Amino acid sequence: MWLLRSRGMVYKPIDEVDLGPHSDELYISPIVKATRMAGFSVKLFAWLLEFRIIGIIFMYFLKKDNLIHKLVSFAEMEESPLFVPLHPSQEPSKREEGCIGSNQSPCDRIQQAAECLSSVSDRSSSEIEHGFRHWTIIDYSKAYKSGVVTPTKVAEQFIRAVEKSSNPKCNMSFFINYDEKDIMQQAVESTLRYENGKPLSVLDGVPIAIKDEIDCTPYPTTGGTTWLHKYRPCKRDACCVERLRSCGALLVGKANMQELGAGLTGINPHYGATRNPYDTSRITGGSSSGSAGIVSSGLCPVALGVDGGGSVRMPASLCGVVGFKPTFSRIPHDGVIPLNWTLGMVGIFSGTVEDALITYAAISGEFVSDQSTALLPEVRLPFLKSKEISGDIKMAKYGKWFNDCHDEIKLCCSKALDKLQRSYGWQTVEVTVPEIETMRLAHYVTIGSECLASLDPFLQKLDKSEIGWDTRVSLAIYEHFSGVEYVKAQQIRKRQMHFFNKIFTKADVIVIPTTGVTAVPIHDDALKTGELDFITAAALMRYQIPGNFLGLPAVTVPIGFDKAGLPIGLQFIGKPWSEATLLHIAFAVQAMFKSDYRKPTVYYDLLNST
Amino acid sequence: MWLLRSRGMVYKPIDEVDLGPHSDELYISPIVKATRMAGFSVKLFAWLLEFRIIGIIFMYFLKKDNLIHKLVSFAEMEESPLFVPLHPSQEPSKREEGCIGSNQSPCDRIQQAAECLSSVSDRSSSEIEHGFRHWTIIDYSKAYKSGVVTPTKVAEQFIRAVEKSSNPKCNMSFFINYDEKDIMQQAVESTLRYENGKPLSVLDGVPIAIKDEIDCTPYPTTGGTTWLHKYRPCKRDACCVERLRSCGALLVGKANMQELGAGLTGINPHYGATRNPYDTSRITGGSSSGSAGIVSSGLCPVALGVDGGGSVRMPASLCGVVGFKPTFSRIPHDGVIPLNWTLGMVGIFSGTVEDALITYAAISGEFVSDQSTALLPEVRLPFLKSKEISGDIKMAKYGKWFNDCHDEIKLCCSKALDKLQRSYGWQTVEVTVPEIETMRLAHYVTIGSECLASLDPFLQKLDKSEIGWDTRVSLAIYEHFSGVEYVKAQQIRKRQMHFFNKIFTKADVIVIPTTGVTAVPIHDDALKTGELDFITAAALMRYQIPGNFLGLPAVTVPIGFDKAGLPIGLQFIGKPWSEATLLHIAFAVQAMFKSDYRKPTVYYDLLNST
Repeated sequence: MWLLRSRGMVYKPIDEVDLGPHSDELYISPIVKATRMAGFSVKLFAWLLEFRIIGIIFMYFLKKDNLIHKLVSFAEMEESPLFVPLHPSQEPSKREEGCIGSNQSPCDRIQQAAECLSSVSDRSSSEIEHGFRHWTIIDYSKAYKSGVVTPTKVAEQFIRAVEKSSNPKCNMSFFINYDEKDIMQQAVESTLRYENGKPLSVLDGVPIAIKDEIDCTPYPTTGGTTWLHKYRPCKRDACCVERLRSCGALLVGKANMQELGAGLTGINPHYGATRNPYDTSRITGGSSSGSAGIVSSGLCPVALGVDGGGSVRMPASLCGVVGFKPTFSRIPHDGVIPLNWTLGMVGIFSGTVEDALITYAAISGEFVSDQSTALLPEVRLPFLKSKEISGDIKMAKYGKWFNDCHDEIKLCCSKALDKLQRSYGWQTVEVTVPEIETMRLAHYVTIGSECLASLDPFLQKLDKSEIGWDTRVSLAIYEHFSGVEYVKAQQIRKRQMHFFNKIFTKADVIVIPTTGVTAVPIHDDALKTGELDFITAAALMRYQIPGNFLGLPAVTVPIGFDKAGLPIGLQFIGKPWSEATLLHIAFAVQAMFKSDYRKPTVYYDLLNST
Repeated sequence: MWLLRSRGMVYKPIDEVDLGPHSDELYISPIVKATRMAGFSVKLFAWLLEFRIIGIIFMYFLKKDNLIHKLVSFAEMEESPLFVPLHPSQEPSKREEGCIGSNQSPCDRIQQAAECLSSVSDRSSSEIEHGFRHWTIIDYSKAYKSGVVTPTKVAEQFIRAVEKSSNPKCNMSFFINYDEKDIMQQAVESTLRYENGKPLSVLDGVPIAIKDEIDCTPYPTTGGTTWLHKYRPCKRDACCVERLRSCGALLVGKANMQELGAGLTGINPHYGATRNPYDTSRITGGSSSGSAGIVSSGLCPVALGVDGGGSVRMPASLCGVVGFKPTFSRIPHDGVIPLNWTLGMVGIFSGTVEDALITYAAISGEFVSDQSTALLPEVRLPFLKSKEISGDIKMAKYGKWFNDCHDEIKLCCSKALDKLQRSYGWQTVEVTVPEIETMRLAHYVTIGSECLASLDPFLQKLDKSEIGWDTRVSLAIYEHFSGVEYVKAQQIRKRQMHFFNKIFTKADVIVIPTTGVTAVPIHDDALKTGELDFITAAALMRYQIPGNFLGLPAVTVPIGFDKAGLPIGLQFIGKPWSEATLLHIAFAVQAMFKSDYRKPTVYYDLLNST
């Protein structure tokens, strides 16, 4: 025990940590000591790690070199562990209005959200010409109501477009499963409802894709694997899907994803590498890769994903769409593969903030987490009655963290921040967020242990050749976290929760870029084995962790492009249960930058191509 | 990963598990495959386990042979993990009356408890002659008030008695620390208060000992070690101690305990093996060994312990006293060494149920657990107004479990149960508690991981020769639990919580023996190294786990003796927050069996020897 023990970090008592701008807290940029691996090197690495004793020796050095030993395993701190990031109710701010009754049906809730939007969402054609913007749910609804187009027509267009996107030339790999017959049948029924003047809601006939981690009949839920659905059959819709279906949404199939969510690239060896609509030689990011690509390319205005380590926000940012992750436990998780229990949350991809709001209204709320005895607070809507943007938003910014990204992202996000301050009068509060790299590693230990605990009963029954090589490496690594490391990670969670709560006494949101790099290229050697590129991974993950580890709501809004024409997103992390405030902010940001939006290279206009 | 994988248990969906008397659920008695070790064999085992690679191989076979692999590590189940056993409030039953106001001072609370007792506690001298019974807090209080004796006299008697108990002939090793000057000063102040007719409460001047895991000035808190206090200085009283002090209690010092609570015998290589007052060649049990011995031998009517795996109830039973562990989080834990975070609870040793009630009233309540956002329910008192015992108590009994103990215990407990049914009209409901051995192992994984996470920052600074050999073995084992095993243990917790909640819809309490064996002998070869006797340990632990793993309140009451004259306890496990009902039941049981109580061999009568 004492033999291989290195000295751990001694963390200060939390009250002695200075969160102010002049704090002497060290910012540690992820120092990842691991080379990129793809092809044969991934296979070799998997073999070595899976060989018990060699794996232990390897992992010892990996943990040591990557600071897991120092920052987590042997760390010294006084906090008790916080296992589940559940938050007490908060007083609603003035930027939030009426809550959605917990006994309302999803249709009624959507209606309320649509009314809330009505004052802002009537965009004129001149607005549309001004810059590229996706068709919204309301656009679909209006087109259907006016008879310009029918859900049946849109469904036909959709199927044609997906076929196009799947042909060997394009090879976008957006879907794992879609069933033409099922789609057409839903569309016909929806069309009939419009003909009878009785659409179920504004979502009626609107195409929505579901990440293949969420149950949606009649499809199996593969989790991006070739086997999980054999052991875990999909018997009924997940709660969130059922809510969408009850509103008439046209559920168009199961979006591609990273195998088991255990990676960030969206390169799936079984179902193909999802390609970025802005540059098909590049990744969408992941793990909700298909959902991001589908919304970005115009196939659906909305798609659902699951965000356990940035898996919604990160690909949304890389694909130039809105990505919205509500507070932990805000959306019921029954019918979602439990790839972890304390980090993940269903999240929304959408072309516009309007659509994030409507979808959020439909699927959130009315759920008592079984991990807690506390009732959740009511779901609230943003205050949008006035076109004026509230001028008193305070945005906390930690310069060293904010700037720890590619120069073009830093420049773009800083400019955006300046513009928001100048135009809306929002303020920036300089702060220090301590122990960010510690939190990233603690999150890694947590998600790994929970993921493997959930999956290992299935893994026992498998021939390992059924699993992708990169995933095998991840699973082999997960096995080497100890119970002590898991518990210490939860002590770190408690510290961070304290820091963030304290920062939120001084600011409404924390503002950061969404990713440290824009979409990276897909290399050919990664297509069959996946790739292990922990350095890029760290850059993609850098800003995701607080949303998951602390269960905080967060939203990314596209604000511009780098020189290569790849989208850049700006992220806001909110106080617990402050979804309404976040959406209020996201509206303002979208309004500011929508004229800069550019159409992706691969884009399908389902409303106009009829 | 796949190489050394054995097939795990496939647990049924919880709703398919039959909890009725004719269930086909298998009862697994702990099948411990490990020989007793003491002396050199413990040292050798510690060396081997601490040697990293050999330790891994050893632990592989230990986990495999002792069913940890099958029942926990590779088990298949659907439940989400439950990390902290926090319970929602429950409707108070009719056996509970008025709650203690959360804004009342400890003195006021004690007053309320004393009033609640007044109808039952006026024992006549004939009652006392009838059978042995300890002096109660009220006896002390009356004696002080009447001037028959003063706290100063009692303190002098106490010090003399402790000296006597510590001499080489007797060698009881009850205390790790006691300070004559501090005790005398407290006593003098208390005496003065009585002289002025202003005692603080019925506890004023009553000697109480504190397990050396709980902060109590002016003593260091060693946790049974020679080093922990050097790194974790005791700066102020723990919350529960502060409450006792505010009531005037005479805090007489720090009770001996198992080193770090990591064992069950009460054999401490640094401070001596605590000896059982009923037979000084035998153990008290542990880890709160000193507290049990102190109360059993009459040195104090009350002592505090901490119960993380039966550490209060088990030694209480072996030493023939009442042991009471309230619901998880019922008593504030600030100032208690966090040897774990999700299992332990301060518990009360007392000679009588009356004293458990008064102490409980003083130290419980008014505490918002920082692991939860939910407010705790009010503290309630048992309904004792009428001398009649309520006849509608339903006791759940699982025969296979109940009978999995030494024949004499089985006989004694069964007879007691019959008598309770006959005399009070209480009913027994036959049930099946599934997966008991699974729960024991899951608890072991949990307590081990949390204990090491809490302590390892200190261990890093130590020369390992400062740690006892048996404790070194425990710590080395704890290091080998994986994050996955820890999370799976929490999934098991969720299953069990479901089972117990369901059983509690049919019964008020679960009745079981407190231990599987009575006090076992102290062998000479164990004095220096401690001993590893996992078979005896399993028998001592068999009935403890639900109280800790599920955070349920539980009480043990002495009901008889085996042929060797060693005490036997009967245990009741209650619904969450049902302390009042449990105490009500404990009163009835005490009343039934008090005539059978026998005086221990080592006994100090501080009230009469003046």
